[in-house]
Amino acid sequence: MKSHTSYIWMNTKNRYEIVNITGAVEEELKKSGIKEGLCLVNAMHITASVFINDNERGLHKDFLEWLEKLAPYSRDVPPPLTHLDGTVPPSDSVRKRDGYNHNLTGEDNGDAHIKRTLMGREVVIAVTKGKFDFGPWEQLFYGEFDGQREKRVLIKIIGE
Amino acid sequence: MKSHTSYIWMNTKNRYEIVNITGAVEEELKKSGIKEGLCLVNAMHITASVFINDNERGLHKDFLEWLEKLAPYSRDVPPPLTHLDGTVPPSDSVRKRDGYNHNLTGEDNGDAHIKRTLMGREVVIAVTKGKFDFGPWEQLFYGEFDGQREKRVLIKIIGE
Amino acid sequence: MKSHTSYIWMNTKNRYEIVNITGAVEEELKKSGIKEGLCLVNAMHITASVFINDNERGLHKDFLEWLEKLAPYSRDVPPPLTHLDGTVPPSDSVRKRDGYNHNLTGEDNGDAHIKRTLMGREVVIAVTKGKFDFGPWEQLFYGEFDGQREKRVLIKIIGE
Repeated sequence: MKSHTSYIWMNTKNRYEIVNITGAVEEELKKSGIKEGLCLVNAMHITASVFINDNERGLHKDFLEWLEKLAPYSRDVPPPLTHLDGTVPPSDSVRKRDGYNHNLTGEDNGDAHIKRTLMGREVVIAVTKGKFDFGPWEQLFYGEFDGQREKRVLIKIIGE
Repeated sequence: MKSHTSYIWMNTKNRYEIVNITGAVEEELKKSGIKEGLCLVNAMHITASVFINDNERGLHKDFLEWLEKLAPYSRDVPPPLTHLDGTVPPSDSVRKRDGYNHNLTGEDNGDAHIKRTLMGREVVIAVTKGKFDFGPWEQLFYGEFDGQREKRVLIKIIGE
Repeated sequence: MKSHTSYIWMNTKNRYEIVNITGAVEEELKKSGIKEGLCLVNAMHITASVFINDNERGLHKDFLEWLEKLAPYSRDVPPPLTHLDGTVPPSDSVRKRDGYNHNLTGEDNGDAHIKRTLMGREVVIAVTKGKFDFGPWEQLFYGEFDGQREKRVLIKIIGE
C-alpha cells in the first residue's frame, strides 16, 4: 500500500469565500503515483469546509446567502428560550453575544462553526486508473467562513 | 491491497425520491471478495445524495418535507438583503429566478444543490469479516432531488 | 495492509448530549500500530452523530440550540402544505404526530434523525506518522440526539 500526504495553504481575501481547489488536489494525485485507492481531502480548521459541487458562481452565491440565513453572523432574533427536552436555560439570552454562546469566548465566529457543519468538513474521492473518479459536474471546493488568515487543507491518498 | 469499482445507474420516476440501495451495494461487496477494508459510496451528480438512515417511509417523507422547508424549490420570500459581512448585494432580488442565482443559468434546480448538501454526497462504510459493519438500523439510501434522468452512484471498495 | 476494528459503547445521561471521544479513539490508533492510513469513525445508530469541531462548551450549546431550531422535538407550526413539486399531501397535518410522520410508528425521535443528518454520521481522519493528522483545534465528538440508552461508535483504521 502506498500513501501520500500533502497540505495546501489557504488565505482568502474575504471573510466568506468559496475557492475551487480541484486542480491543486489533482496535482497531488499525480505526484502520489497512486492508481487505485481513496483520497481524503479535509479542512484542518473548524470554521472551514471542503465539499464537492458545481463550479457555477451563481450557485456559490446561493450557498453563501443560504448559510447566512440558516446561521447568521449575528442573530438579532433570540433563539427559542424553551429548547431541547423542554428545559429552559436560565438567563440564556443575557449570556450570549451576537446570539452565540461561543462568542462569549471573545471570538465572533460562532456562525462559521455552524456554516462549516452544514457544508461539511471533508470529502472522500475514489481514485480509479490514476484519476479522480468524478461525475461530469463534480468539482472540489474550499469553503471559508472566517477567512483573512492562514489555514490548511489536508490531502491524504492511500492505495496502489 | 485489493480494490473494486462499480457504478449503479439510477433514474427515478419522481423529481424527489429516496431509494434503498443497500442490497445493490452489498452485491458489489460480495463480488469484490474484500474481507477487511473501507467502502466509499457516493452520488456522482451534484443534485443527489447517498446517506445512511432508517428504512422507514414516514421518516423519508419527513426528510423530503424538511428539505423543502429549508431549501424550497421556489423561494417566494426574498432572502435577507443584508447578508454575510454586512455587505448589501445590489439589485440582488432582481437578478434571481425562483430565489436562486443559479437558476439564471436556465436550470431550475438551485434547490437540489442545497438539498443534496444537507443530506450529504457520500458515506464511508467499514467492511469487517466480509460484511458491511452496520448498526442494527443502518441502511443505505440514494436521495434524488432533480430526478427523471440518468445518474450514477459510485462504489469503491479497498482492502484485503 | 493492516486493519483495526473497535467499538465504543455510549450511554448518555441526557437525551441530547455532545461527548468528546478524541482520547478514546486515539487509544485505538495506538493499539492498531498503523502509521500511515485512514481512520473511519461513525455512529452505528441513526439518531447519533460523529463529527469534528471545537472543544468549547458554549459552541456545543449553540449547536444543540441551533439543531432544536432547525429540527425541533415537536413542531407546533405545521410544515408548508404545498411542497416538493407543487403537490399537496392530503390530510398530511392530520396524520402526523409532533409534526413528524416518523412518530406515527410510536417513536418520538423524528427530530433526532434529522439532527443527526445535520451533524453528520461519520468522519474520516488521516493517520500520518502514527498520529491523527489534526489541525490545531480539531477534536472528535459524539453527538447524541436520542440518548439514555446503549449505542455504539465504530472505529475502523486501515493502512500500514
